[in-house]
Amino acid sequence: MTTAPTAALGDRELALRDRARQVIPGGMYGHMNVEAFSSAHPQFMVSGEGCRVTDADGREYFDLMCGWGPVVLGHRHPGVTAAILDQLERGDCLDGTSPVAVEYAELLVDTVPAADWAMFCKNGTDATTTCVTIARAAAGKRKILVANGAYHGAAPWCALRGAGVTSEDQAHLIHYEYNDLASAEQAAAEAGDDLAAILVCPMRHDVRRDQELAEPEFARGLRALADRTGAALILDDVRCGHRLDLGGSWEPLGVRPDLSAWSKALANGQPLGAVTGVDALREAARSVYVTGSFWYAAVPLAAGLATLRELRKGQALPDMLRTGTRLREGLAAQAKTHGYKIRQTGPVQMPVLYFAGDDLSLGTAWAEAAVRRGVYLHPWHNWFLSAAHTDADIEAILDRTDEAFTDLRRSAR
Amino acid sequence: MTTAPTAALGDRELALRDRARQVIPGGMYGHMNVEAFSSAHPQFMVSGEGCRVTDADGREYFDLMCGWGPVVLGHRHPGVTAAILDQLERGDCLDGTSPVAVEYAELLVDTVPAADWAMFCKNGTDATTTCVTIARAAAGKRKILVANGAYHGAAPWCALRGAGVTSEDQAHLIHYEYNDLASAEQAAAEAGDDLAAILVCPMRHDVRRDQELAEPEFARGLRALADRTGAALILDDVRCGHRLDLGGSWEPLGVRPDLSAWSKALANGQPLGAVTGVDALREAARSVYVTGSFWYAAVPLAAGLATLRELRKGQALPDMLRTGTRLREGLAAQAKTHGYKIRQTGPVQMPVLYFAGDDLSLGTAWAEAAVRRGVYLHPWHNWFLSAAHTDADIEAILDRTDEAFTDLRRSAR
Repeated sequence: MTTAPTAALGDRELALRDRARQVIPGGMYGHMNVEAFSSAHPQFMVSGEGCRVTDADGREYFDLMCGWGPVVLGHRHPGVTAAILDQLERGDCLDGTSPVAVEYAELLVDTVPAADWAMFCKNGTDATTTCVTIARAAAGKRKILVANGAYHGAAPWCALRGAGVTSEDQAHLIHYEYNDLASAEQAAAEAGDDLAAILVCPMRHDVRRDQELAEPEFARGLRALADRTGAALILDDVRCGHRLDLGGSWEPLGVRPDLSAWSKALANGQPLGAVTGVDALREAARSVYVTGSFWYAAVPLAAGLATLRELRKGQALPDMLRTGTRLREGLAAQAKTHGYKIRQTGPVQMPVLYFAGDDLSLGTAWAEAAVRRGVYLHPWHNWFLSAAHTDADIEAILDRTDEAFTDLRRSAR
Repeated sequence: MTTAPTAALGDRELALRDRARQVIPGGMYGHMNVEAFSSAHPQFMVSGEGCRVTDADGREYFDLMCGWGPVVLGHRHPGVTAAILDQLERGDCLDGTSPVAVEYAELLVDTVPAADWAMFCKNGTDATTTCVTIARAAAGKRKILVANGAYHGAAPWCALRGAGVTSEDQAHLIHYEYNDLASAEQAAAEAGDDLAAILVCPMRHDVRRDQELAEPEFARGLRALADRTGAALILDDVRCGHRLDLGGSWEPLGVRPDLSAWSKALANGQPLGAVTGVDALREAARSVYVTGSFWYAAVPLAAGLATLRELRKGQALPDMLRTGTRLREGLAAQAKTHGYKIRQTGPVQMPVLYFAGDDLSLGTAWAEAAVRRGVYLHPWHNWFLSAAHTDADIEAILDRTDEAFTDLRRSAR
């Protein structure tokens, strides 16, 4: 299955980029602005099926980004697609809520031990923002502890980049260091009697650095700190949710948050976010006014319900664990064979790979080589596996990454 | 076509409400929490077709809310549905942007004279937030002028209700009175040399009060004020956009904003928002980091493209103007006949109706009577017409609203 690497970006890709530069600032924005991380990745994609995606020039890739997280069962999963088509037959954006919202909230509450209720939205940022708002309403306090460098969305209150953000937008954030409980306790002390919430991701998945699993004592310590101070513990499960543990990403640690923010993988690609919380915060959740024109639309909720039903069958998560493990082992062996020292960190279902001592230039060159060989992966954002990746797909991916290591070695001469 | 009014909420509706109260705070949230405005409107809807929607008990309504705005061509419009299905066949949430984003941005730029570029998002709040962020980045300044009572979204920086919102979230908002240029000039003076933007809706469409069209001198005055101070004029066209004037809701006034926020009607119900702006703000738009997991998804963009193509054929907007005019005239005549003094304000395509001297109790009773007679409309939020409302539909609606006036008169005895 050896393929020649594609020499350059395709003609349609280049033509589309020219057109995009005219009508979209910088040609593209946000995390999908491909020029921010690669000279070889296509900006434009036209289709996806299972674990494969196709660009505007008809080039097919094994997909190791899964739409940057949402696609947990594979593109166009038959069960989810059937639910989408069935709901589209009836209606989507109506004057009232779809009954599917109730059915889905019931299933989420049944699935997530820390959830007594659920609310739905569109973006991950909607979910984290709503969590913070509920926590503040509950406590009548303002300070939110957040980890240095942690991404909780792209709204001014949590943005990591400065353009257009005022210091007042983030006036009540106090920072701690991930996996450093003492720093969180110090931040809480700094908040004094104004602490509303501790916001934390299930693992450290900041871009451009190794991922770090949460130390069990850190997670338990945050839970105890929240209990001691009366602050809400908010788990930002937007990126990890529904991929590591269906009950919530800290279930294996036995640590249950008061509020959880969900999005990405909920509905296998349909636009959906959710907030779940415990009974003690139900009244605060009722008291805040959060809404959006499309938050009640039936089709994404139907897709969410179908996705969760499929995930609850129990095969998808173990499958991703198995294929992710094989991918990690294969990449480690290849790097060794080719004489490269690499680090692979985070859960195998959400891998990231860095070269030792690299300023990201080697990693970028390798990622570009991989894309030219037909594997879409990222140089410095974690990847995502889906349940659509079979063992055979992983072997085919490894054939191509091996070629990418070879290409890298050759280009370094 | 006279129908008996339904006596009470249906059994399925009541059962769904009971279930919802268990797993959704307060049973529902946001603007679709029906208990906040009615004891007769169904909370749950299962389907829609053209200008009709059906609730969980199979009761059909003429739809005068159109999903609270998004549905501008009618539910399940064949052309838009075909575009959705066609794109779903290929893929939705991929690793790169769909080429449809470029095609759609080109058509928006071609349609909106004040647009040299476009960016896409999910919520109206995403769009207004992005506009404010771009304006601040461009000016390196912080203050935003907003009209008292104006709704620009449900994020903490613009929320109208207090629970969970801190004063710092809104530290840089300075308020003016809609249609009062002197108050805007005073607000600008208060901002001193820190003025980033003037944010304004094309008309005053605050809930629970008459709508007010923008006075031409007010709109022109804001434009001149922005020019004089170097602030960006941001038009929040989320609610009015694509219903009043395809080129932007202030085109008839000859006033062009620097930035426009769009959402609701863009994609006939599919979740989509957009920001458009002028060349002078292109670099600032490039400099801000805004993004979301589903902002690049192909299906809503394909629906947006299909919706705009349909609207550009030129029939939908004049149709809504004609049917809206007939509805307004009919309601005015009925009120007179039944001995009620009413006020109907705002554009006929986005009507609202209040009873003179009413504390909303009469209006609520009439809206509840209308719903029981099979017309879904709101007591204190503006309604929306769609291009799917035919003249015959309007006559059928008027038959039922006439019955609602009769019901109201009887119940008042």
